[in-house]
Amino acid sequence: MSHTDGPSKGCSNQPGKNKQGPIPYDSCSVTFRDDQPLRLDSGETIAPYTIAYQTYGTLNEQKSNVILICHALTGDQHVANDHPLTGKPGWWDVMVGPGKPVDTNRYFVICSNVIGGCMGSTGPSSPNPANFKPYGLDFPVITIADMVRAQASLIDYLDIDTLFCVMGGSIGGMQVLEWAASYPQRVLTAIPIATAARHSSQNIGFNAVGRQAIMADPDWHNGRYYDHDKRPSKGLAVARMAAHITYLSEEAMQEKFGRNLQDRDKVTFGFDADFQIESYLRYQGFKFVERFDANAYLYITRAVDYFDLAADHASKPGDSLADAFKDTKTRFCVVSFTSDWLYPTVEARTIVKALNAVAAKVSFVDITSDKGHDAFLLNEPEFFDAIRGFLSSAARQAGLQPAPVGDRS
Amino acid sequence: MSHTDGPSKGCSNQPGKNKQGPIPYDSCSVTFRDDQPLRLDSGETIAPYTIAYQTYGTLNEQKSNVILICHALTGDQHVANDHPLTGKPGWWDVMVGPGKPVDTNRYFVICSNVIGGCMGSTGPSSPNPANFKPYGLDFPVITIADMVRAQASLIDYLDIDTLFCVMGGSIGGMQVLEWAASYPQRVLTAIPIATAARHSSQNIGFNAVGRQAIMADPDWHNGRYYDHDKRPSKGLAVARMAAHITYLSEEAMQEKFGRNLQDRDKVTFGFDADFQIESYLRYQGFKFVERFDANAYLYITRAVDYFDLAADHASKPGDSLADAFKDTKTRFCVVSFTSDWLYPTVEARTIVKALNAVAAKVSFVDITSDKGHDAFLLNEPEFFDAIRGFLSSAARQAGLQPAPVGDRS
Repeated sequence: MSHTDGPSKGCSNQPGKNKQGPIPYDSCSVTFRDDQPLRLDSGETIAPYTIAYQTYGTLNEQKSNVILICHALTGDQHVANDHPLTGKPGWWDVMVGPGKPVDTNRYFVICSNVIGGCMGSTGPSSPNPANFKPYGLDFPVITIADMVRAQASLIDYLDIDTLFCVMGGSIGGMQVLEWAASYPQRVLTAIPIATAARHSSQNIGFNAVGRQAIMADPDWHNGRYYDHDKRPSKGLAVARMAAHITYLSEEAMQEKFGRNLQDRDKVTFGFDADFQIESYLRYQGFKFVERFDANAYLYITRAVDYFDLAADHASKPGDSLADAFKDTKTRFCVVSFTSDWLYPTVEARTIVKALNAVAAKVSFVDITSDKGHDAFLLNEPEFFDAIRGFLSSAARQAGLQPAPVGDRS
Repeated sequence: MSHTDGPSKGCSNQPGKNKQGPIPYDSCSVTFRDDQPLRLDSGETIAPYTIAYQTYGTLNEQKSNVILICHALTGDQHVANDHPLTGKPGWWDVMVGPGKPVDTNRYFVICSNVIGGCMGSTGPSSPNPANFKPYGLDFPVITIADMVRAQASLIDYLDIDTLFCVMGGSIGGMQVLEWAASYPQRVLTAIPIATAARHSSQNIGFNAVGRQAIMADPDWHNGRYYDHDKRPSKGLAVARMAAHITYLSEEAMQEKFGRNLQDRDKVTFGFDADFQIESYLRYQGFKFVERFDANAYLYITRAVDYFDLAADHASKPGDSLADAFKDTKTRFCVVSFTSDWLYPTVEARTIVKALNAVAAKVSFVDITSDKGHDAFLLNEPEFFDAIRGFLSSAARQAGLQPAPVGDRS
């Protein structure tokens, strides 16, 4: 398949810009034109559409060393390089880099911003070709499968047939499951982490709270805030605060913040952030609005609500989650964390049971951690060992060369 | 103590107005004038102040059959009569009434609206005597102990020495604990239900989200919305939605709502309330703002954040929760619910351990329920049996007459 006359591309190699050390990476984007529209589950299409992505490491000759990382709700493609807006290290730089569990000396890592996002891929803040103004709510509602379909078009464009691994946490994990179910022949191994095969009622509830907070902000202007040169920052901050509680565990919060006061000896008998936890959550909300588009938050949370892998892949009434993985050859490593209450271990077990029911190759690791859902982003040695071990074993089986000794690490 | 020249009072006996049957009750209020200010933990005072309360049943001659019920965050004094604003049955009418676990044929039940509330007791929407406008944020920040101090002034006013029982759930349970710690000689039995001896970090976080949602609403006007003839309804609704999730259990939500769609066969690919859980939470938010004052929500949640019984009653460094109950003669029945994650069973155990450490008389009942925190408001037979049994046994010990047979029930 040749795209020479089709998509337009742009890449900027920016080696050495990282505080973390010399991880070379490419900042790229590809735009698919009107003749290659993205077909959505809703029946609508998006055209043109752009996918912004980063790559780390070197693609081998056989193109057999590709790891696709899928990012979570508020993540983006900046996995292991300093973030262009915040200047902070990439969201998974503990996991991805030379000599790290996802070893960029050995693997070629790709991560793209999800469709519907706000870091370069087409989303509600992108210009609507109908009027060249930002889409706002005229952007079609997307699904996890739509995100994956867009990623698949990127992988096609890069002329890559098979992904050595697709991995990701949280709704990144949902994308991993969707990849395995939709493109089983293209996914050699899959690592869904801290995730679920369908969004629970309680989680839909939390998303609904976040969306209502945004939509209650008069600066939201029914999604047309771009035209008013406003942003619904207060509503988005409240949404982030509520969501952030679900990312931590009760015990970790209690241990880290407890009832400690923030920069004071006693309570003020007022409504300031007396407690550290209040101050922390307000700060999280405040920082978040600097880098995230409120409409993108609406669209991505909606995609998550809609995710129900069993229902989406049922070909006949009564089909179960196992049927979504029928005849899969993919080797799975399902990871959960004991204190994650957003996507608790029982959700991982449900996935594992479904995989077992179709005799899939599956490892299951329930990592003991008190860090809640966010554990997948943090330095958890047991977790890293599991990922490193699984990838190394799968790489050996796939005949991948070991990482060159002393090279670039 | 004579109050003849002191407080002003008003009562309206309204027997038979209940849909639920002929429970006679009194709707009363008492106003303490400037010479009897309410002294607050903050060092400030409130004067004058009004306590609005309901009574059910008949006070016996010895005044020994009084049960004081303490209401939760968004509850009020309308325990077992139809609510004057919503027309709905009282919030605990399953528990309180003739022949019910809290048998109004036997006990004289009192419930007063908390200070800081919005159903007749003085709160931020009450007129500030300084300018006769609603207090707004000029109302002093109150604590659970302040609420209890106001209740004690009501009990004094009614010339009642000893309470046969103080009972309540959630932050009503905090008031129960505060009563037992502050007025041990006046509390014969205490039933703290679905509560904790201090508000956890996570729960402070959820309260902070609710308050930020209210304060982010431009109709809040820095608490002066009364002057603008506005109400921060959208912000308050978001606060209620977020809090409501914490009142239910994940399993009950999943069972009741799951991923069921609301009045439709398939998702709309839009931002309407596609799912039943979304529709339910929006409705809860929408209904709540009709009956509750946003500033009262700020003040009461703040009082809850500040609650830390051990710290508040520590007379020297190193004092533990047990010291708050030292030398108590009160007989306790501590109740928790297995699926309550707002005040989980471990919080009840902490209270029980502290009581055991001072050799207090304590029963502990952990009720198996999938209904989450809200279980204390619902028809839970095992819970009712426990309350009925504990009260009957304590009443026998206290020499209370059994309920007259066939009388008014």
